[in-house]
Amino acid sequence: MIHLGVDLGGTKIAVGITDDTGHILYKDNVPTCRERGYAAIIKDIIDLCKEIINKQQIDIKDIKSIGIGSPGRCDSGNGTIIYANNFDFENTSIKDEIQKHINLPVYVENDGNCAALAENMFGAAKGAKNSITITLGTGVGSGVILNGRIFCGSFFGGCELGHQVIRKDGELCTCGRKGCWEAYASASALIREAKIAAVRNPHSLINSCVKGDLSRIEAKTVFDCADQGDQTAKIVVNEYLLNIAEGIANLINIFEPEVIVIGGGVSAQGEKLLAPVNEIITSLTYGGKSKTRLAIAQLGNDAGIIGAAFLD
Amino acid sequence: MIHLGVDLGGTKIAVGITDDTGHILYKDNVPTCRERGYAAIIKDIIDLCKEIINKQQIDIKDIKSIGIGSPGRCDSGNGTIIYANNFDFENTSIKDEIQKHINLPVYVENDGNCAALAENMFGAAKGAKNSITITLGTGVGSGVILNGRIFCGSFFGGCELGHQVIRKDGELCTCGRKGCWEAYASASALIREAKIAAVRNPHSLINSCVKGDLSRIEAKTVFDCADQGDQTAKIVVNEYLLNIAEGIANLINIFEPEVIVIGGGVSAQGEKLLAPVNEIITSLTYGGKSKTRLAIAQLGNDAGIIGAAFLD
Repeated sequence: MIHLGVDLGGTKIAVGITDDTGHILYKDNVPTCRERGYAAIIKDIIDLCKEIINKQQIDIKDIKSIGIGSPGRCDSGNGTIIYANNFDFENTSIKDEIQKHINLPVYVENDGNCAALAENMFGAAKGAKNSITITLGTGVGSGVILNGRIFCGSFFGGCELGHQVIRKDGELCTCGRKGCWEAYASASALIREAKIAAVRNPHSLINSCVKGDLSRIEAKTVFDCADQGDQTAKIVVNEYLLNIAEGIANLINIFEPEVIVIGGGVSAQGEKLLAPVNEIITSLTYGGKSKTRLAIAQLGNDAGIIGAAFLD
Repeated sequence: MIHLGVDLGGTKIAVGITDDTGHILYKDNVPTCRERGYAAIIKDIIDLCKEIINKQQIDIKDIKSIGIGSPGRCDSGNGTIIYANNFDFENTSIKDEIQKHINLPVYVENDGNCAALAENMFGAAKGAKNSITITLGTGVGSGVILNGRIFCGSFFGGCELGHQVIRKDGELCTCGRKGCWEAYASASALIREAKIAAVRNPHSLINSCVKGDLSRIEAKTVFDCADQGDQTAKIVVNEYLLNIAEGIANLINIFEPEVIVIGGGVSAQGEKLLAPVNEIITSLTYGGKSKTRLAIAQLGNDAGIIGAAFLD
């Protein structure tokens, strides 16, 4: 069978088809232009799905289902997006809209949950009964797989792991609380701290790397400068790793899954991220006895499409 | 059928029998005297079970199973206690030991999980698919029920919800980490802060309540003094409630269960605890829209026995 997955993102709408093993056979995308509003976005999703089906000459009978991964709170039961801040979506019956135009089973799920499902089925957590995938990017995305199924709480809004407070009364988070993990472990948090450090230490390599334009600092900049021995960058990276580890140690104490997968832009650091975080976690969990394995995500940006494609 | 439950505690071994509706028909207990070691404790458990069966003239064929709730990490799969700090137990085959003497199915589970199961089946979370029970006592105990079943992670050590760090680099916790929820939300934490406050404010009602002997401060003392308008006690209680709420808000963002049940000694405060914590949580969760209900535990100290009795 063919599986069709849609990854509705803030920047682009990506659609792909996979085989039964999660291998992407073909994919394409169009810009989201979210300011256009719901109707135009849904039309683009439907058009892109149809276009791929036609172009790839797929018999609709060979498609098992269409899955949509969307930001925000999704009611996977009746196929609606309850709300998605980024999009001003509220209680949109996306499943029904799509089924009006394409006669296939349609599933809707939060995008972080889709990524977690994909990594669990075909990626870094393959074979694990319980796994968690977190994505360190602009925010901290997350998805939890328990007994091989997406776990999303009783009201489709659970598993917002980025919004566990690790520093009460700390940095203001986008969610309104203070001290959330996201406010310390996201790439944005790393960049924020690097900017502060660069201002305080004008001779830091960070400044020269971005030619004094601090708005150009990326997560990679900070890791690269630390790599080259820059003390300021090293201190910022070390503190960042401590914060990542603190949240992961919490997740181990709370869920104790076989695997915690780290994805998102920061995960490109690979072992430079994994090795120190593992070491810190050993010091934070009961007698260093944690059996949970940390791993870097394997499916990259395709995880959203692949997970959505296997929501059935 | 009759269900037999054992609650192995640090102070006493409590054994009870229930009917199919979780109603305790008879219960008894003996002191644990844990310094005697494993063999003596197991013998007492077996003896007390046998005694109750005989005294109550129960046909062994009418007993569905024996369940043991124990502190520490229990392998519910093969019926062993992997370790329990309080007892110096390590990989003890408690199921096999008991079955040598009583020919019944035997189940072993962490005591926090037993209490959570009992509240879910027959108590404050009855009817909930997903619920969490936390006990605010010497420490912060916890158990998580997902889809009506105990969830304990992949290696029987998950759901240590008291050991989520809410204040990185904060108070040292018994687990070795700094800033765990337990170090702020347990009755011990409340008493610790009340002592500090009483020393700093010698005219506080707290001091006169315990006649200057601060070792006599209990959780109830602090709540009572706050109730009577003592400013020092009010500040301590308010801060304590903020800390409880911070951890609960984390659990809502992480699990979003239908119900979070609060048990343990502190839960005797009832609405005085629930109302302010609910109010704080409204300010801490996304737009105050949390659908998770908070409730005071209904089964009290019997939860351990009842949950153990229904592990089958």
